[in-house]
Amino acid sequence: MNQTITGFSEQHSVPVVVESFRSTPDDRLRTILASLVTHLHGFVRDIEPTDTEWQQAIDFLTQVGQRCDDTRQEFVLLSDVLGVSMLIDAINNRRSTTATETTVLGPFHMVESPRRPLGADISSDHDGVPCVFSGRVFSSNGTPLPGAEVDVWQANGSGFYDVQQPDIQPERNLRGLFTTDSHGRFWLQTVVPSFYPIPHDGPVGALLKATGRHPNRPAHIHVIAAADGHATLTTHVFIEGSPYLDSDTVFGVKESLIRPVTMVDDPALAAHHRVPNPFQLLEFDIVLDRRQAPR
Amino acid sequence: MNQTITGFSEQHSVPVVVESFRSTPDDRLRTILASLVTHLHGFVRDIEPTDTEWQQAIDFLTQVGQRCDDTRQEFVLLSDVLGVSMLIDAINNRRSTTATETTVLGPFHMVESPRRPLGADISSDHDGVPCVFSGRVFSSNGTPLPGAEVDVWQANGSGFYDVQQPDIQPERNLRGLFTTDSHGRFWLQTVVPSFYPIPHDGPVGALLKATGRHPNRPAHIHVIAAADGHATLTTHVFIEGSPYLDSDTVFGVKESLIRPVTMVDDPALAAHHRVPNPFQLLEFDIVLDRRQAPR
Repeated sequence: MNQTITGFSEQHSVPVVVESFRSTPDDRLRTILASLVTHLHGFVRDIEPTDTEWQQAIDFLTQVGQRCDDTRQEFVLLSDVLGVSMLIDAINNRRSTTATETTVLGPFHMVESPRRPLGADISSDHDGVPCVFSGRVFSSNGTPLPGAEVDVWQANGSGFYDVQQPDIQPERNLRGLFTTDSHGRFWLQTVVPSFYPIPHDGPVGALLKATGRHPNRPAHIHVIAAADGHATLTTHVFIEGSPYLDSDTVFGVKESLIRPVTMVDDPALAAHHRVPNPFQLLEFDIVLDRRQAPR
Repeated sequence: MNQTITGFSEQHSVPVVVESFRSTPDDRLRTILASLVTHLHGFVRDIEPTDTEWQQAIDFLTQVGQRCDDTRQEFVLLSDVLGVSMLIDAINNRRSTTATETTVLGPFHMVESPRRPLGADISSDHDGVPCVFSGRVFSSNGTPLPGAEVDVWQANGSGFYDVQQPDIQPERNLRGLFTTDSHGRFWLQTVVPSFYPIPHDGPVGALLKATGRHPNRPAHIHVIAAADGHATLTTHVFIEGSPYLDSDTVFGVKESLIRPVTMVDDPALAAHHRVPNPFQLLEFDIVLDRRQAPR
């Protein structure tokens, strides 16, 4: 017979479990669970896991959950290395071709960036090659956006964020929240970030190792740009020439987001940035989508 | 453009992520991950989660992992209430129609059952209606199986297992490992178990509550039966007339596993079982599949 009293069987598992959620008051939750059950049972039917493999999956998920704490989110890492985070980013950022492309938030925006004046140096540990980072924020119609907020955070020249090295890096190192000037410009001093491995001493690192994948992300600076009347943009600027641009372990690199760090010999500009001439410069202009009228 | 340097895009996420696992040395792991990515991305594309919903999913999975400890396995509960455990049971127990049907192991077989003589009383707390539990173990060709091992565990009349009430129930209460006699028979004294809720004070309980599902399982006794040359059987005997037989929250009930507890007036049989006459009797014969010749 191999059929339960509810009609549950190998061939007929999805409708029975979906039906068990019929009284869910929240329509969206009911829809999500019906889809989850459909795809999850499809995966199980496809793989036909042994009892041992099922137990291994239970153990892996348990380890991922137990590796999470205030400064570590192992399920976000799992979502990242399986391409789920970037897929959700793509789905939620279908936009005009003129706007700057998006990429993942990542797990290191866990503390607020301190508000800083234009031109401030966000590197307190001076670990890395000094560099000016500047750009302009535009609306998708081409108008510069004064008063836009540009939130920046990055790893240092050794490839670590402040929250990963609380005993080594000063608090809020390499983080800053800037406001564009009357021409929509922002500029700041920093260091060129290094590529780095995502935290890989946990179960997600073990998965990467077992599958012959490296844990690295190419060098990048995170940016969230926000302006009134525009969709807030979460993205990175990637450093041209960095290793791993073609194999980012979280699938985050888009060609349109890669910029060179160039040596600039311009005494007037060096004076404006209050740095010795010549100097390294990373430029990244940002275009924000005008928000649709409320539907 | 909305396409990464690797070719990852909303429409083209699966092949890129599957390709990232191409160097996995273990063929089975590579197959599992390719299927996982296909079904997981299919789920995401179907639902189109918002960033907030993605964060809620991350938080839920984290809570499930963090609720696990030595006596609690919340991911097993999640697998159970989503019908995954029963689906895997069905897949791994496609068998001859003469063998006893299987059902889930459940999360309470976490301690070894003590070896006990035939006729022993496994109830040390006497919480519940006294009852004799007896049956015979057969091979699928109809031959009785002497020397078969019958491992039994159950909740008491209040619906709790010993490991859930370490301060109330004696250790190894309502657990026993028996060996069938020369006619393949087993018998023991116990109490009629109660239906009970699965542990529902954690995130899985919150999911059941949010979806209007009750957390209950109908009354049952767990059995693992093993004999040389036969496939080991993991099943339950369900108590006829119990509430929730038609809505077991883990989808485990099969009609063929339901048995009545009957009042028996038979002084000779009562004397054999060393119980007062009349007495409550639960009978459950077990048929094991002869193992296939090694392949």
